[in-house]
Amino acid sequence: MPAARRRPEVVIVGGGFAGLAAARALQQSPARVTVIDRHNYSLFQPLLYQVATAALSPADVAAPIRSLLRAANTEVLLDEVVGVDVERHRVRTAGGRDVGFDFLVLTTGSQYNYFGHDAWRAFAPGPKTLDDAVEIRRRLLLAFERAEMCADDGERRALMTFVVVGGGPTGVEMAGAVAELAKATLVRDFRRIDPASAHILLIEAGPELLGAFPAKLGRYAEKALAKLGIEVWLNARVEHIDAEGVVANGRRIAARSVIWGAGVAATPVAQWLGVRPDRHGAVDVNADFSVPGHPRIFVVGDVARALGADGKPLPGLAAVAKQEGRYVGALLRDRIAGNKAATAFRYRDYGMMATIGRSAAVADLRGFQFTGRVAWLLWGGVHLYFLIGFRNRLVVLINWLWAWRTYARGARLITGRGPSRPVAPAPRRPSPAVP
Amino acid sequence: MPAARRRPEVVIVGGGFAGLAAARALQQSPARVTVIDRHNYSLFQPLLYQVATAALSPADVAAPIRSLLRAANTEVLLDEVVGVDVERHRVRTAGGRDVGFDFLVLTTGSQYNYFGHDAWRAFAPGPKTLDDAVEIRRRLLLAFERAEMCADDGERRALMTFVVVGGGPTGVEMAGAVAELAKATLVRDFRRIDPASAHILLIEAGPELLGAFPAKLGRYAEKALAKLGIEVWLNARVEHIDAEGVVANGRRIAARSVIWGAGVAATPVAQWLGVRPDRHGAVDVNADFSVPGHPRIFVVGDVARALGADGKPLPGLAAVAKQEGRYVGALLRDRIAGNKAATAFRYRDYGMMATIGRSAAVADLRGFQFTGRVAWLLWGGVHLYFLIGFRNRLVVLINWLWAWRTYARGARLITGRGPSRPVAPAPRRPSPAVP
Repeated sequence: MPAARRRPEVVIVGGGFAGLAAARALQQSPARVTVIDRHNYSLFQPLLYQVATAALSPADVAAPIRSLLRAANTEVLLDEVVGVDVERHRVRTAGGRDVGFDFLVLTTGSQYNYFGHDAWRAFAPGPKTLDDAVEIRRRLLLAFERAEMCADDGERRALMTFVVVGGGPTGVEMAGAVAELAKATLVRDFRRIDPASAHILLIEAGPELLGAFPAKLGRYAEKALAKLGIEVWLNARVEHIDAEGVVANGRRIAARSVIWGAGVAATPVAQWLGVRPDRHGAVDVNADFSVPGHPRIFVVGDVARALGADGKPLPGLAAVAKQEGRYVGALLRDRIAGNKAATAFRYRDYGMMATIGRSAAVADLRGFQFTGRVAWLLWGGVHLYFLIGFRNRLVVLINWLWAWRTYARGARLITGRGPSRPVAPAPRRPSPAVP
Repeated sequence: MPAARRRPEVVIVGGGFAGLAAARALQQSPARVTVIDRHNYSLFQPLLYQVATAALSPADVAAPIRSLLRAANTEVLLDEVVGVDVERHRVRTAGGRDVGFDFLVLTTGSQYNYFGHDAWRAFAPGPKTLDDAVEIRRRLLLAFERAEMCADDGERRALMTFVVVGGGPTGVEMAGAVAELAKATLVRDFRRIDPASAHILLIEAGPELLGAFPAKLGRYAEKALAKLGIEVWLNARVEHIDAEGVVANGRRIAARSVIWGAGVAATPVAQWLGVRPDRHGAVDVNADFSVPGHPRIFVVGDVARALGADGKPLPGLAAVAKQEGRYVGALLRDRIAGNKAATAFRYRDYGMMATIGRSAAVADLRGFQFTGRVAWLLWGGVHLYFLIGFRNRLVVLINWLWAWRTYARGARLITGRGPSRPVAPAPRRPSPAVP
């Protein structure tokens, strides 16, 4: 009997788009694959804003990593990686584990970047994790409940003012969804306040919305948001955020609900590897996504600074993460099998989309631009399609059709904390006498 | 112009089955109705155990009270009642409100009763609120994750041991659902543990399961649970519960997950009213559900000790709460309209059901008893039917059909807290060498 050859160990950190794609490309490989994630589920982030605005349930946009990765060579570990020993080829976890690897694929994604103002985070959460989204939902729904019970005019106005920071897809989608929540869903449900009078303000630092899209689509988004009654400030710098609201361009806006969708930064992979990140925290990688000087360590997805064919960094999109993950998975599979090196990575750019509200969206697909109802239907179809592998497509479709028909939202729950904090009781409206 | 007559104020505390039914019966009344609940949603408790076992999402079994009660005369207040001033006719809330009433309907329901051992609550939550259910789900799913990572045999066994306390419908349904979660849903998803080897123990103090049902159905449940591999202890007294497990009948069972479904006690309405409760904390009421000595205060649902035609207290069922709520709502409507007193309340008993697992349930319907697949289909149909008024029927039906087909569960999320606490790393299984 020949001496047993040790099976190569591939450790993938992160079970998002990139990590899943890499693990799936390796499932026929003789390698032993370990996927480490701090959650037991993989998140479909593009629909997370709908969880934050009570349209979908957390389980509709998430699926257990274990049931997505059932290949016999693959193991899933619920733990949080806290460091990498690049010399000894081991990752360290919060759970006290020390996992050795022959190849390491880091796909930990991005988090919101408060531009050095980490104190803002508590007042302005962004929809990045399920817990974030549920917390934003709680704050939005509670703001209306508190406004209904509030006797003070100024406080009520602040409760009914919603500021969204960032005019990229996340900010535009959040602002549109908050407007629909207030003006379509909640409008008939209150007696003292008029939810339709909610003031929604979208603040963007740059000169236009949806900067990554063709300028015409940004202008369309501006008009569509205005139609929903959303105020848009362009070229506006957020200077401060606290419990009272936001200061932007020297003006203070009293707002009890602030949502962050401005900038993202890579998770601290650069620090683990001891390399210098770019200004978004991302790590420069070679053409094959290996880290310069560390040929067995790969960085993929939002956390990698990979260049496209045009020499510009690839955007932080699900499609990019997925394609990169699949590429690196296949590359490792081939290398472990002793096959010759794969061809170079080329991002297949199918385009970008963002939705604003009912029958309003923008899509830029391989140079063809769509707006309005066509873009909105495209957006819905594409997102349902990419939920494949999740049970959730049918449930999401039903939720959408039902919301479209009734304007109701399926997940209007305030959960996770105690009831409302005490506020001053409101005066009752005068009511007609019994005739 | 005649002097305006003041419209009577009806305050309903609780937006569950009883409170909703009372408010709905009053929606055409000239009364002004205020429904106070500490949650913004009404909960369909009979399916809560499915949230606790990852089969359904919280939003599938809950609906916003505001959207269920849109009548112009009805107001909904998100607040928690903490006391009643029976002399001045006012209720006090945690939010500092002081709400006056002409008629008060108390429907605050029940909570788990730890028989004087409130310290057990932390170790053995029961599925009573949405937050409870999500916490139980978190514990169940995390127990398997921790077992997978656990190197210590004894600890792994304790993690894979699940104790359910109480052999009534809640306990039977929880035990069955935990067994299916382990043995059908999770069974293919782990590499080091075999979820099918989970040890599930149901402990009942009395001599039979489902004591409120005909004895034959209790015996069927026992057999059906045994088929699912669940161990049932009858005549077993729980003496102690702590972080390490349960002591019952003098034996210690090492178990990291304990679920309480043993006894319920009424919420502290008796204390608010300064009356003597029965041993379950419920309040004795007159035939019209008013409190003796307080003709304008009514107590309805689990918190009332109302007697049936046979002179025995009516059980704590959704159907009882609903019928009582509707009766008191109609009674107040008639009284306010100056019509003559309604006829006496009579509970229409349609029966009781409990489900054990796939194709296994019991139903006792007006003297006809069903078991097995017929009872199971009846149970499903009845529960879907009573979800009426909630969007959720279709989504629940899809989840059920999908689960039936695939054994998967739609809401396998560990949310709400940090990742797993550190445990000792497990040894890797020996793996075959590459040939």
